Amino acid sequence: MKVSRSLAALGEKGLLQVLTARWKINPKRILTGVGDDCAVLHDKGNHYLLFKTDAVVEGVHFRPREKPELIGRKALCRALSDLAAMGAAPLAAVITLGVAKHESVRRLKGIYSGIARAAKNFGVNLVGGETTRAKELFLNVALLGECRGYRPILRSGAGLGDLIAVTGTLGGSQSNLRHLLFTPRLEEGQWLARHRFATALMDISDGLGADLPRLAEASGLSFQLEAKSIPRSPNANLFAAINDGEDYELLFTAPPGRAESLKKKWPFATPLHFIGVMGRRGAKSGFPVGTYGFDHFKQH
Amino acid sequence: MKVSRSLAALGEKGLLQVLTARWKINPKRILTGVGDDCAVLHDKGNHYLLFKTDAVVEGVHFRPREKPELIGRKALCRALSDLAAMGAAPLAAVITLGVAKHESVRRLKGIYSGIARAAKNFGVNLVGGETTRAKELFLNVALLGECRGYRPILRSGAGLGDLIAVTGTLGGSQSNLRHLLFTPRLEEGQWLARHRFATALMDISDGLGADLPRLAEASGLSFQLEAKSIPRSPNANLFAAINDGEDYELLFTAPPGRAESLKKKWPFATPLHFIGVMGRRGAKSGFPVGTYGFDHFKQH
Repeated sequence: MKVSRSLAALGEKGLLQVLTARWKINPKRILTGVGDDCAVLHDKGNHYLLFKTDAVVEGVHFRPREKPELIGRKALCRALSDLAAMGAAPLAAVITLGVAKHESVRRLKGIYSGIARAAKNFGVNLVGGETTRAKELFLNVALLGECRGYRPILRSGAGLGDLIAVTGTLGGSQSNLRHLLFTPRLEEGQWLARHRFATALMDISDGLGADLPRLAEASGLSFQLEAKSIPRSPNANLFAAINDGEDYELLFTAPPGRAESLKKKWPFATPLHFIGVMGRRGAKSGFPVGTYGFDHFKQH
Repeated sequence: MKVSRSLAALGEKGLLQVLTARWKINPKRILTGVGDDCAVLHDKGNHYLLFKTDAVVEGVHFRPREKPELIGRKALCRALSDLAAMGAAPLAAVITLGVAKHESVRRLKGIYSGIARAAKNFGVNLVGGETTRAKELFLNVALLGECRGYRPILRSGAGLGDLIAVTGTLGGSQSNLRHLLFTPRLEEGQWLARHRFATALMDISDGLGADLPRLAEASGLSFQLEAKSIPRSPNANLFAAINDGEDYELLFTAPPGRAESLKKKWPFATPLHFIGVMGRRGAKSGFPVGTYGFDHFKQH
């Protein structure tokens, strides 16, 4: 008798692997499909298009009583963080709204004004919208970005001995509201990609403890973290900094020979910290504490 | 005291207008934003990118007991029909899955195999997927398409005296399962756009009675339909042909001087019928029967 696997056993990542296992792409047009922060389409010459979809659902990604403007802001900024995570600039977004029949129009207007304000701040053209009836409120953001004149940075490019770096500080994003108010690191990401400082790049959405292993796996390497170097938000201990998630900071690797130059030339107010080093494939990766991050389907 | 408008009073179209009223786009990059079947981004020279988002929700767009493969097929093909509706070819899609915690993995695999098969049949690269927890199953498809060497056809290009045409037959899509099994008219749409036969073009998703007024409004004209010319599906009467919706056929206008040539050169097995003519702005538009189409929020 076949035992059907449950969602909880598979987890979010496992489910996605099962569902997309047989997807094939045309390598002439598509540089990167499933598995990185965004898909990458090769256009012409040194011009790349980035493509991303991301949804927020009431009760999962925001509380029902959250300020409507912040719900809209978060929906767009999460997807923007995925563009930042490859070093791309935003181009255009299309929004799907799922809405219950008796939803208040005033609340929806608040949500859309949050989307519009974030779009203006971060240079996104809002070019299409759809609405559908649903039992619960959800917003899906599909986003197009681009790299003009340089290549986007994948998760898979880390080299043995590369240093591991993060922007900002980690942990406590639920209690300090950063999960709603974060700034997608678009400029930092583009700078890292344009100047080829990053060998691998992604954003931290599920927590360093979940996301760094993904970067390491994509690059075929292990990693060692140095506990005391991990930058913690004021309200976060080391465990929180590794496990909380929703930091929306950049996580990247840089060749050790370029670390000094990177630190010197870093033109942003955003903090930059080196927190570890990439090790050999197969070596045991080292976390100071428990290693799991947030997974929608798994119960911790 | 302010009276808050309800969703039912606004309707789906009204809601979208309220929510997107203040969206601004950069006209250097964006040719068409909200209001047509897809957004159009101008790339270089005679190359255009088309961008679309569309969701299907359990209990709204498909029945819970529907065959999983057909749910996936429909989710992708609805968005493909919107590319056809502007004469574009598909390029790449990203899929968001919203899924309840105890959903069966086997059913989800069925849905994704329906998506993958349709993607293969219609030349779509599946390049990204996301999953999120939700109370009810939903699938959001974001789609990129392109026109290489010709311009996409908008809804707004109909001229006074242009003939109104439809592909296929209309009505009865729920009972004959065409709402699940329809073929997006991608080749027909591209042919019409490449050869400049269509002055305005869209697809019929909410019913001729809802969609033709949109084309007329976008073009600043009225229309007259000829009841006996409207092609009905075998199980549909005239009322059904106008009001049922989910036909996913093409609706377009053509200059009267080109109608004969169009009929002669039409290279497809898909039927082609002329059903009316575009009239002056402000003139009363003529439907043989009631004029409304499907609206998610309005109750008929």
